[in-house]
Amino acid sequence: MIGYAFMGAAHSQAWRTAPRFFDLPLEPDMAVLCGRTPEATTAAAKRLGWRATETDWKALIRRDDVELVDVCTPGDTHAEIAIAALDAGKHVLCEKPLANTVDEARAMVAAAERAQAKGVRSMVGFNYRRVPAVALARRLVEQGRIGQVRHVRAQYLQDWIVDPEFPLVWRLQAERAGSGALGDIGAHIVDMAQFVTSDRLADVTALTETFITERPLPGSSSGLTASGSSERGPVTVDDAALFIGRFAGGAVASFEATRFATGRKNSIRLEINGSTGSLAFDFESMNELSFYDGTDDPETAGFRRILVTEPTHPYAGAWWPPGHLLGYEHSFTHEIVDLLRDIAAGADPTPSFADGLQVQLVLDSVVRSAQSGSWHSIPS
Amino acid sequence: MIGYAFMGAAHSQAWRTAPRFFDLPLEPDMAVLCGRTPEATTAAAKRLGWRATETDWKALIRRDDVELVDVCTPGDTHAEIAIAALDAGKHVLCEKPLANTVDEARAMVAAAERAQAKGVRSMVGFNYRRVPAVALARRLVEQGRIGQVRHVRAQYLQDWIVDPEFPLVWRLQAERAGSGALGDIGAHIVDMAQFVTSDRLADVTALTETFITERPLPGSSSGLTASGSSERGPVTVDDAALFIGRFAGGAVASFEATRFATGRKNSIRLEINGSTGSLAFDFESMNELSFYDGTDDPETAGFRRILVTEPTHPYAGAWWPPGHLLGYEHSFTHEIVDLLRDIAAGADPTPSFADGLQVQLVLDSVVRSAQSGSWHSIPS
Amino acid sequence: MIGYAFMGAAHSQAWRTAPRFFDLPLEPDMAVLCGRTPEATTAAAKRLGWRATETDWKALIRRDDVELVDVCTPGDTHAEIAIAALDAGKHVLCEKPLANTVDEARAMVAAAERAQAKGVRSMVGFNYRRVPAVALARRLVEQGRIGQVRHVRAQYLQDWIVDPEFPLVWRLQAERAGSGALGDIGAHIVDMAQFVTSDRLADVTALTETFITERPLPGSSSGLTASGSSERGPVTVDDAALFIGRFAGGAVASFEATRFATGRKNSIRLEINGSTGSLAFDFESMNELSFYDGTDDPETAGFRRILVTEPTHPYAGAWWPPGHLLGYEHSFTHEIVDLLRDIAAGADPTPSFADGLQVQLVLDSVVRSAQSGSWHSIPS
Amino acid sequence: MIGYAFMGAAHSQAWRTAPRFFDLPLEPDMAVLCGRTPEATTAAAKRLGWRATETDWKALIRRDDVELVDVCTPGDTHAEIAIAALDAGKHVLCEKPLANTVDEARAMVAAAERAQAKGVRSMVGFNYRRVPAVALARRLVEQGRIGQVRHVRAQYLQDWIVDPEFPLVWRLQAERAGSGALGDIGAHIVDMAQFVTSDRLADVTALTETFITERPLPGSSSGLTASGSSERGPVTVDDAALFIGRFAGGAVASFEATRFATGRKNSIRLEINGSTGSLAFDFESMNELSFYDGTDDPETAGFRRILVTEPTHPYAGAWWPPGHLLGYEHSFTHEIVDLLRDIAAGADPTPSFADGLQVQLVLDSVVRSAQSGSWHSIPS
Repeated sequence: MIGYAFMGAAHSQAWRTAPRFFDLPLEPDMAVLCGRTPEATTAAAKRLGWRATETDWKALIRRDDVELVDVCTPGDTHAEIAIAALDAGKHVLCEKPLANTVDEARAMVAAAERAQAKGVRSMVGFNYRRVPAVALARRLVEQGRIGQVRHVRAQYLQDWIVDPEFPLVWRLQAERAGSGALGDIGAHIVDMAQFVTSDRLADVTALTETFITERPLPGSSSGLTASGSSERGPVTVDDAALFIGRFAGGAVASFEATRFATGRKNSIRLEINGSTGSLAFDFESMNELSFYDGTDDPETAGFRRILVTEPTHPYAGAWWPPGHLLGYEHSFTHEIVDLLRDIAAGADPTPSFADGLQVQLVLDSVVRSAQSGSWHSIPS
Repeated sequence: MIGYAFMGAAHSQAWRTAPRFFDLPLEPDMAVLCGRTPEATTAAAKRLGWRATETDWKALIRRDDVELVDVCTPGDTHAEIAIAALDAGKHVLCEKPLANTVDEARAMVAAAERAQAKGVRSMVGFNYRRVPAVALARRLVEQGRIGQVRHVRAQYLQDWIVDPEFPLVWRLQAERAGSGALGDIGAHIVDMAQFVTSDRLADVTALTETFITERPLPGSSSGLTASGSSERGPVTVDDAALFIGRFAGGAVASFEATRFATGRKNSIRLEINGSTGSLAFDFESMNELSFYDGTDDPETAGFRRILVTEPTHPYAGAWWPPGHLLGYEHSFTHEIVDLLRDIAAGADPTPSFADGLQVQLVLDSVVRSAQSGSWHSIPS
Repeated sequence: MIGYAFMGAAHSQAWRTAPRFFDLPLEPDMAVLCGRTPEATTAAAKRLGWRATETDWKALIRRDDVELVDVCTPGDTHAEIAIAALDAGKHVLCEKPLANTVDEARAMVAAAERAQAKGVRSMVGFNYRRVPAVALARRLVEQGRIGQVRHVRAQYLQDWIVDPEFPLVWRLQAERAGSGALGDIGAHIVDMAQFVTSDRLADVTALTETFITERPLPGSSSGLTASGSSERGPVTVDDAALFIGRFAGGAVASFEATRFATGRKNSIRLEINGSTGSLAFDFESMNELSFYDGTDDPETAGFRRILVTEPTHPYAGAWWPPGHLLGYEHSFTHEIVDLLRDIAAGADPTPSFADGLQVQLVLDSVVRSAQSGSWHSIPS
Repeated sequence: MIGYAFMGAAHSQAWRTAPRFFDLPLEPDMAVLCGRTPEATTAAAKRLGWRATETDWKALIRRDDVELVDVCTPGDTHAEIAIAALDAGKHVLCEKPLANTVDEARAMVAAAERAQAKGVRSMVGFNYRRVPAVALARRLVEQGRIGQVRHVRAQYLQDWIVDPEFPLVWRLQAERAGSGALGDIGAHIVDMAQFVTSDRLADVTALTETFITERPLPGSSSGLTASGSSERGPVTVDDAALFIGRFAGGAVASFEATRFATGRKNSIRLEINGSTGSLAFDFESMNELSFYDGTDDPETAGFRRILVTEPTHPYAGAWWPPGHLLGYEHSFTHEIVDLLRDIAAGADPTPSFADGLQVQLVLDSVVRSAQSGSWHSIPS
């Protein structure tokens, strides 16, 4: 694994936990952790449970005891690392967004295709697909339980930089993060909405906004938090992105990603209205799925609060009895489970790098539309 | 109508509104309002829309232009007024609780039976039965949609006297109000639970509590609110009453009525678990009924939030399109509608005085159990 | 009053009820009801409580016993009636949308200005402003309780025509209704969002959609419901409209109006994120306002579910004790109360016809943007 | 660790995870797993991550590489194992209920006292205390944020045996389980309510009920699930237990534990009303705490939905950013964290065996009251 901040901690817990609750055809061995500074990396490896460390990711890729590389670094490094790893014959799990630019993402897809021909697998880490309620939503759509999809309504609302004195961490710098709310959290709802509907956004019209254009330079940054300083620098990413558009299958859609929704901590909302039913989800109640079955008799029809903890629900049977909730990091455990099963089966995991590229193309169209003021089609 | 405070205002609105939304076999004519003080009564009659006034309820009963007497006075006067009215051949709608004592209630039932033989009807005003969601709950139980009732869980939570400086209004004095939370609001949940289940409480064990035993004497009281004074007097009713027990049909039950549930304004909660389904209601969301259908496939089973505003729902079709909510006073309008239809049809309205007596017997057993520390059976 | 369908019934109840709960400087007298067919109008007048009837609205306007004209007809007739009434010196309450076209709306504003000079008042009926929770939301924004408004998120979701066999009622015909979901319900959320924020939409980019393009011709139409027939005709209005845009004050916004949100009956959602707090409202829980106060200590900060039934809440003190809910039609009663008080005070009621025109200009920009695929500025 | 079923899996995950997210003064080493059948134990040890196995718990206690014994067996074995382990100088974590009888529990307390004198620590596993929202609730009560506690309302609702064909697993047999819903889940809410209020139940009046008195014998039992057989046997425990009572500090209380609340999967509800505020919790939304602050201005007072994921919330800072939820098993991780810190600090962990005994005394009074029909005082 390369990187050991927020995502690194989540992935480590997933690698450690997956074999304890799921029957896996492959046994994960947490071999090597890679970071830039030796001491911090060693401390992180001890904390997170990795056997060895490297400070050069190229060295990590060369190691014989590494069969899979888990890329948990900021987006500007994804392409170089992932391509090198794949070309070296290592399976790759790459955190989202796949890359900071479409060009990088295309190169990564090409590398993934080269690797696939040699049986080497790749996956991009849209972990929210593996929240049981989200996976159940897709299943219900696939089963036709809501009919033809008419409306998609997706929001990812956070508030962690609403304070103008919050410092200029790397996630607020375009050269590191690529974009702001759009790429960081907007990417998740684009993937989630396309995943649940098994459909793709076709075109969009968009706006982006940066409410606070200058912030204190961070003393030291660790991704999500940082201590401030007295100097200020420009915020070069979006604080919020909104867009509406159409899916290829005819549904109309509204998306919004923001870090300025005061009081909303990690509210990922998805609501889908179909011709015979509807679904609604909010990550702040992540163990629940709301489902309206339009075929119920009108007298007792109503949105059902499904507690997605039943043995037959996706992933849920491996854990606890009904009503005993799962948390955020379980989605990463499920990601690992699916990845390992696909690798063992010689199957291509999803979401693939091509799926990641497609999300990138949506984000790119959003940016272009916000700049041009016109509709943009998403290339297929 | 006799009395024009809180209940008088609610009833007046109901009498005025019922013929505007419902096809009624009888046309209500708001003839005479009766109160003790001439000026206040005249002002109230103007405000509430009554044609004439009386200051002596016996005079009101003698009037030829009065066919029905609506008793909205405190509980200590119900028996005398209602019995006199019935014996004079007037239909009677009497606010709950039916009376302050079981003996009075028994006398009222006797009067109601005498009157019934002459085609004179009587009804006790448990208005919450006519909230559409509550009426729908009963319908679903009757239809067997939740199977055999196993659990009844009822709470009526208010907080309007949690401030120890709230004055000693008549509702806190045993000689006027009979009891405190128990008779005022506990009566409602006893009736509601028995109504929804079509069953009767068989025995109980109880406790009552008075948290604030002394309060400022009111300058002037108007039932629910009053300005305080510097003198204090003893609170002679319960602030809260809790009891558990069994229904005749085998369900176990828990009841709680309190005016000390800080933050709960008028939270009337009823939850019923049956062998194949469950129902839940909270008056603070009075247009909703929660329904769990245990026969749904486990993958999509969940409590349904039924918005009880569909044309087929009880009472709802007379009002607005689906999703356009009803309020508190609509329950009284529905009460009037049912009362007038029964009178025209020569049928006995429900809840009858006998139903009111039965609730009184439950409350009486609660008081006795709280005093004796032992279980008490409710006479049938 | 002209018209006696859905809106006519709501307004009648409001005229009847307002003086019973509020101290009014003027006493409403429900004089004349006007409809096209004599028998139906007479029956409606009896049902709704009007003293006399007319079948020609011009005759109604000429009557000396008419001082105020309440226009409850479809939008294509608003301009002609309202202008004539104002010019005849009658106060006018006109249902929304103010008109079907911007030109008509402009003419109505001109008439309102002419009338105002003579002390004749006019008001457009955006009733949802008078839901206590919505009025409280505005008050909190005005008081600075959420700081600078950053995000506005508004949705009006219904599902009453999701069935493709639902007939082609007048609301689905452009020549009568002007537009579909956009004008019928989108108008409400545009007004509500602008009202709560005291700000105005500055520009928009939009899409509209008609999912079902052909429907059975109605046997007979009465606005919201109708029985079907075997012939079919084209739906000439939008089924759904989505747009994003910016407020003059800098907030970004997302709006959506649809009649195809299966399971959502009358879900009017408004969420506003400010720099120090947030507000959220859903009409399906119309007695509640969610408020996040960012100045609360982080340990206990959270969205507060305010039950808007306290004596100090807008309009609520006139009704029942806390926790006793209000319904849909109360918003109309509050509208009448404010209108009569303004007329008596010689003040101009709000929302004015100019406010109605401004909403019309927003809707017009939405239509133009949806057609052109580009951003449109709303003229101020 | 002894036992590897439901609780064993939860504890294993906690032992494994605690050092990865928390700074611990002691490093847990998952040394030995003990079970009765060698093959199953070996398989479980591999699955759950234990280095070695034993099939005799006495052998496990004798091992030098064992410093702490985690007892995850059914309640009838707790006393013998825990006392032996303590007397052998091993720290003990014992799952709840502490024992099946008061006598056993008293003996365990005596052993714990003997051990404490030698620096050997003991703890009983009421894991729900360590749900962050529950720990926050206690903190707020301690800080006086709700004033004097007046009402405690606790329910533990499950539905896993509502099907009469569900087999007679060990949890339904008095000789193994001690009691039914009362000891299994009622124990949790008794502990939770006493923990949050820092008060103790003083007396109770109770009822218990067994709805289904005979069930199919299980083919093979594994605690919570089992396949049925054609023979039937008697259910010898309660299906539901209800009681009301008083806390030493004057609050009145209502408790209910049932496995027959159809549709409620693991609904642990606690509501506490104090003189100046209220708290409410439901485990089915375990990351939320509802808090009503009666000192808020009445205009904006309302129950706050606190998402208990802020850095300052109990335990939450060690995990993810705000809004990223925790699950059921995190409560066990927190239990281990507190236990290890106390052991290292030479402090006595809570809940102690004495706390476990006190809960047992409450349950015993409930049983006695249900049998006698009279109030029972809980010995202090």
